[in-house]
Parts: sequence; structure tokens; C-alpha cells
Amino acid sequence: MRQYPRPLAKLINELSKLPGIGNKTAQRLAFHVLSLSDTEASALANAILEAKQTMKYCEICGNLTDTDPCYICSDKTRRQDIICVVESPKDVMAMERMKEFDGLYHVLHGAISPMDGIGPEDINLKALIRRLQNSDVKEIILATNPNIEGEATAMYIARLIKPSGIKVTRIANGIPVGGDLEYADEVTLLKAMEGRREL
Amino acid sequence: MRQYPRPLAKLINELSKLPGIGNKTAQRLAFHVLSLSDTEASALANAILEAKQTMKYCEICGNLTDTDPCYICSDKTRRQDIICVVESPKDVMAMERMKEFDGLYHVLHGAISPMDGIGPEDINLKALIRRLQNSDVKEIILATNPNIEGEATAMYIARLIKPSGIKVTRIANGIPVGGDLEYADEVTLLKAMEGRREL
Repeated sequence: MRQYPRPLAKLINELSKLPGIGNKTAQRLAFHVLSLSDTEASALANAILEAKQTMKYCEICGNLTDTDPCYICSDKTRRQDIICVVESPKDVMAMERMKEFDGLYHVLHGAISPMDGIGPEDINLKALIRRLQNSDVKEIILATNPNIEGEATAMYIARLIKPSGIKVTRIANGIPVGGDLEYADEVTLLKAMEGRREL
Repeated sequence: MRQYPRPLAKLINELSKLPGIGNKTAQRLAFHVLSLSDTEASALANAILEAKQTMKYCEICGNLTDTDPCYICSDKTRRQDIICVVESPKDVMAMERMKEFDGLYHVLHGAISPMDGIGPEDINLKALIRRLQNSDVKEIILATNPNIEGEATAMYIARLIKPSGIKVTRIANGIPVGGDLEYADEVTLLKAMEGRREL
């Protein structure tokens, strides 16, 4: 006996590839998709295609963007002399939600993790060093996650940049240690920014 | 300060419309979509479009299908004299997973629920009565969910069909009462089918 008709089985299969979506949830989502109007279903499909096609990484900071350079890098009203280094584009969004920091960002797309075979050359670090050459950046805030990999990455970058005389700071451990920057609330993030200390 | 770039915000918005997907999960899924290859993202989008475009309801039984009539209705090796009446296409799949029933189905797309203003004319019932006219169907198994609405629907259909002399049975309460047919395991479903009693 057969299971779901092929197009439905295909949709369930594709949905179940998404993170945190098991087979039962994928079935529920698939049936929901079938219950949508044609317009709604197209909107969902097109949002996927459009996001995939138009979203790229900013050539300057590495953040996700639909314009190049991204809106933060091209915003001349922001402070150009301070760069906040984060692990992922989600962390940029977390910082922006705080509505307090008005400098620039640099997205590493990961953290140094020898255990996983991720070295300094595997993250977006060279671009940061290039950015600092002949720039008037006065401070680098290291806002990598407060876990082993994030701390190691912060220490590595600090040691790399300090000789150039640029002030290097690390956000305070106001954020629960071992946690994830993405899920920190605005107040905690603010405390962490205020309590930053020179390395 | 801006939030996510527009295409990404749009994708997050579309994903968060799905049942059980909150804003945080939608963000996580959206970032996952961006991390997919072009081929994988297209596969997901196309699966949505294709399923939406090709899946329809079988004109005979009302089940979801990509062919009309559906593969069950057009399978002449199945018993043509017994029809299992269920509330939704998911219930057909649950029955098929049992690999024991080889008759036909009829999908009501709902249950009678006066509280929600759903009467007998709002579910796919007329088509069932039409199917029974001049047919050699000998038994109707009522496999609506064992909750108030499902029971009421079963009673209503039983009373409607009994005068025609066709045997009307109800699946046994082997399935936990108040539960959902879709989530019953195969063995429980089998017990329920075996213990069916005439109404």
C-alpha cells in the first residue's frame, strides 16, 4: 500500500529537512500549506526563493544584506571609529535590537574551535584586519559568545590587534556564561556593553 | 535602526504564519534557508508550489490526491463493498499505515459540530450518500474521531444510512477517547478495527 501522493510526500520530505522539524511536524505543516490559498502558498515559496537569491554577505562587514555594502556599513551617521565583532548575523540583529550601539559591525561567521577543526583562517578574520589598515578605528568590541570558543576567539583577536594600538574591549559577562548572544534580552546586552573591559 | 533586510524579514514573516512556528523559530528556519544551497532552497520552494498546484481532492472519496480519482478509488484490487468514513486525509494515511484495511475510504473533511456552526451539509456527506446509491457497498465503517463531534457525526451518518439496509459499524474505543485518530499507533488502530460493532 502506498503512502502519501508523490507531491505531498515530496513536500513533507523537504519540510522535514528543516532544523527542529520532525516527520509529524512536517506532515502538519504540509497539510497546512495545502490548506493555504494559492496566493499565500506562492508568497511562502517566493519568499524562500527571493531571500535566497537576494540575500548575500556584505563585502565590508560580512553581515547578511540585500544591498552591498549593507545598510549599517553605508550609514555615515553611525560612528565609524568603533567596530563590534560578532559571530553571526543573528548577533548583529540582537545588538541592533538594543538600540544603543551606533558603531559598525564585523561578522566572523563562526568562532575558533580547534576541537571542530576551525582555525583563525576559517572565520572572517582577514577581512577585519584589512579593514583596520589605514582606518581611524579607535576601538574593537569583541562580542563573541561567552562560551569556550567565543572566549578563545576573543583572546586570539585581542592578541592580534593590540600591537596596532587600537583599543580592544570585551563585552562583560552580564550575559549568562555558556549562553547564546542571540537569546540575550536587551537589558542584559546593555549591561554587557556598559561593563566592557580592556583586554 | 532597522531590523532584518526586507527579503529576510519577509521570509521570517511568511514562515511565522505556519502553525506552531513562532517568531524565534521562524528566524532560525529563515537563517537555515539562507544557508542552503540554491538547489536545496529551490527544491523546498518548488515542493510547496508543486504540492499546492497538483494536490486536489478525489471526486469520489474526497481524499487528497494528485490523480483523479485517487489511487485508492482507482485500485480495483481493493474491496469495493466496504467504505471507511474518516474526518480527514490524515486519517486515511493513519489507516493505510495499519496495512490491514483494503476497502475504500470516504473523507468528510470535518465533523458535525453545532457549537462551531458546522452542520451535516457543511461536511462531505452528500457525496457519500450519492456513492451508496446503486452501489453494492455492504458495510460502512465509521472511523470518525472518538470525541464529541466525531461521535455525533457517526450517530448522524448511522441513522441516515441504516434505512437503506447497509451494515453500519463504528470502530471500537480501542483508541483513547478524546484522542486524535491521526496519532494512534498501528496496533491500537487494528484493535479498534477488529472490535467494531454494529450501530
